Amino acid sequence: MKYVYKLLVLLMVSFVSCNQPCNCDQGKTLGKYVLVIHGGAGTILKKNMKPEVEKQYRDKLAEVLKAGEDILKKGGSSLDAVTKCITMMENSPLFNAGKGSVFDAQGKNEMDASIMNGEDLSAGAVASVHTIKNPILAARAVMEHSPHVLLISKGAEQFAARQGLEIVKPSYFFTEKRWKSYLKVKAKQAVGEKHGTVGAVALDKQGNLAAGTSTGGMTYKMMGRVGDSPIIGAGTYADNTSCAVSCTGHGEYFIRNVVAYDIGALMKYGQLSLKEAANFVILDKLKKQGGDGGLIAVDHTGHFTMTFNTSGMYRAYATSEGYNGVFIYANEENIKPQKKKMK
Amino acid sequence: MKYVYKLLVLLMVSFVSCNQPCNCDQGKTLGKYVLVIHGGAGTILKKNMKPEVEKQYRDKLAEVLKAGEDILKKGGSSLDAVTKCITMMENSPLFNAGKGSVFDAQGKNEMDASIMNGEDLSAGAVASVHTIKNPILAARAVMEHSPHVLLISKGAEQFAARQGLEIVKPSYFFTEKRWKSYLKVKAKQAVGEKHGTVGAVALDKQGNLAAGTSTGGMTYKMMGRVGDSPIIGAGTYADNTSCAVSCTGHGEYFIRNVVAYDIGALMKYGQLSLKEAANFVILDKLKKQGGDGGLIAVDHTGHFTMTFNTSGMYRAYATSEGYNGVFIYANEENIKPQKKKMK
Repeated sequence: MKYVYKLLVLLMVSFVSCNQPCNCDQGKTLGKYVLVIHGGAGTILKKNMKPEVEKQYRDKLAEVLKAGEDILKKGGSSLDAVTKCITMMENSPLFNAGKGSVFDAQGKNEMDASIMNGEDLSAGAVASVHTIKNPILAARAVMEHSPHVLLISKGAEQFAARQGLEIVKPSYFFTEKRWKSYLKVKAKQAVGEKHGTVGAVALDKQGNLAAGTSTGGMTYKMMGRVGDSPIIGAGTYADNTSCAVSCTGHGEYFIRNVVAYDIGALMKYGQLSLKEAANFVILDKLKKQGGDGGLIAVDHTGHFTMTFNTSGMYRAYATSEGYNGVFIYANEENIKPQKKKMK
Repeated sequence: MKYVYKLLVLLMVSFVSCNQPCNCDQGKTLGKYVLVIHGGAGTILKKNMKPEVEKQYRDKLAEVLKAGEDILKKGGSSLDAVTKCITMMENSPLFNAGKGSVFDAQGKNEMDASIMNGEDLSAGAVASVHTIKNPILAARAVMEHSPHVLLISKGAEQFAARQGLEIVKPSYFFTEKRWKSYLKVKAKQAVGEKHGTVGAVALDKQGNLAAGTSTGGMTYKMMGRVGDSPIIGAGTYADNTSCAVSCTGHGEYFIRNVVAYDIGALMKYGQLSLKEAANFVILDKLKKQGGDGGLIAVDHTGHFTMTFNTSGMYRAYATSEGYNGVFIYANEENIKPQKKKMK
């Protein structure tokens, strides 16, 4: 048995060594689409959620999903669908991104975002911005209109302004709810809720993958702390030959484990399925380290996953086959999704 | 044959699926050490190099290597050796890091650095700092004395000051040579030399790996542009179960391809050797995309590589077996290093 195993490994090595570490089907999946969105993973329990608040989240997720799906249905790009969904979530006070961003230790809103195009591996990101209404649009502008991937702070803000993006006063990001959280955490002198991010991944009818992520960070975080959301490879990754991934969770763990890229690496080099890769990274590797969070991902064949090791993750999906759903708590969806139309 | 191959893949998948995507020997290599350093890859040609300048580089690399090797020889940690080597290169005006940093479009020195401990995957990084004498020490302080991985700009500078690190006036980083390059590039209104980074990787006698990278970025770069050097996964990565990697090159390509992490992923999931992985990523994948640069890496068994697709890379290595050498141009070293003592 030992000999057979050794032979298998040797054969595998010789196969992989021929400059072809990927044996996945690189052919594009044409004509079908998949869209998955998330509004953050964390301690989200039904017993702590008011029914009217739960309804607000479900309604907003359904509205965002529909807007993104409309783009894909008409043959629009995964990049446009991802951008649209994240922009809408940034404009809602419900999520910790854009308008609903939390306050840092200085009582400021400091935001990060990133986006990646699986077709050509182009990517853009901004970190530590205070005046850009939609950080995801700035990330996309960095990708499409600069030779760079990551711009931070004032450099990113000046670039966004030159690109004609909407610049707002920092006070635009003030919300009563987040300010109260800030005061509460400040009184305890402790870092607050570590989670809260929005993201989207999509496969379009042309077979192209895209992923994006946006966040307001952690309540009462140290000035200048940057998490995984604007880090290509950690919080966001997309590659047409494997998958598109957007993460949410305790950012430091996602950076150290290069989570978004790792999912595709496990598929391309390790021959795991998307689901196996996501389960291994989120439910095993990260959980053992104490890294709370989750991810959404779609692969180049249209398989998708919404995997998390917390009590909940705001999430929704829609596919060209008519499957769709909006979920908040763990174990809410069926493993085999029912073909149903959204209300 | 097709059936046999499918069987092999299926067996491999079932093996990999058992939460064990790595079949490498996770046992530590005890008692031996390896140290590799680099001072940047780029267009480095003997015909353009004055002999006295070449001598300065070779002497400094040898001096840095010896200081790092002394630590490892006495049983010190890979983390201490990496920190020492990078600090020394930051203090030299020869390299684009610390003292010798290039100027950005605003005529400022804006520096980035990162470090990672392969034993526990802890990591630290700073980006866009102007007043910290040794950015690598700030990165290490973030790793060891904060719950975060990445701190940027003023937040990073304030943290470094609180940690008691040496803070200098921005004018400390002024060098005549870099200022002339800045004026030259400014006159042409173009981004200058894309390369110039320092880095170190080491395996210590306890079997622990570490990697670190530090840079002054690109001459005349856009304000706020951050390259791969402070990005864990892109410019730096270390994991005792695979390898330690430090990159140098056109940062955007290294971010999009998550180069530092990719080397270990190809080893752990794809069963490639360190050399095969580095050759595939630097000489094939990156080269096809137009991504200039290189990397140094050492794996958990003590194999090491210095791989680049440019005309030169300042580099040096030393091992406990007594092999060592200092190199600048391509094809300078023998493939099988000669056992020799440094002058």
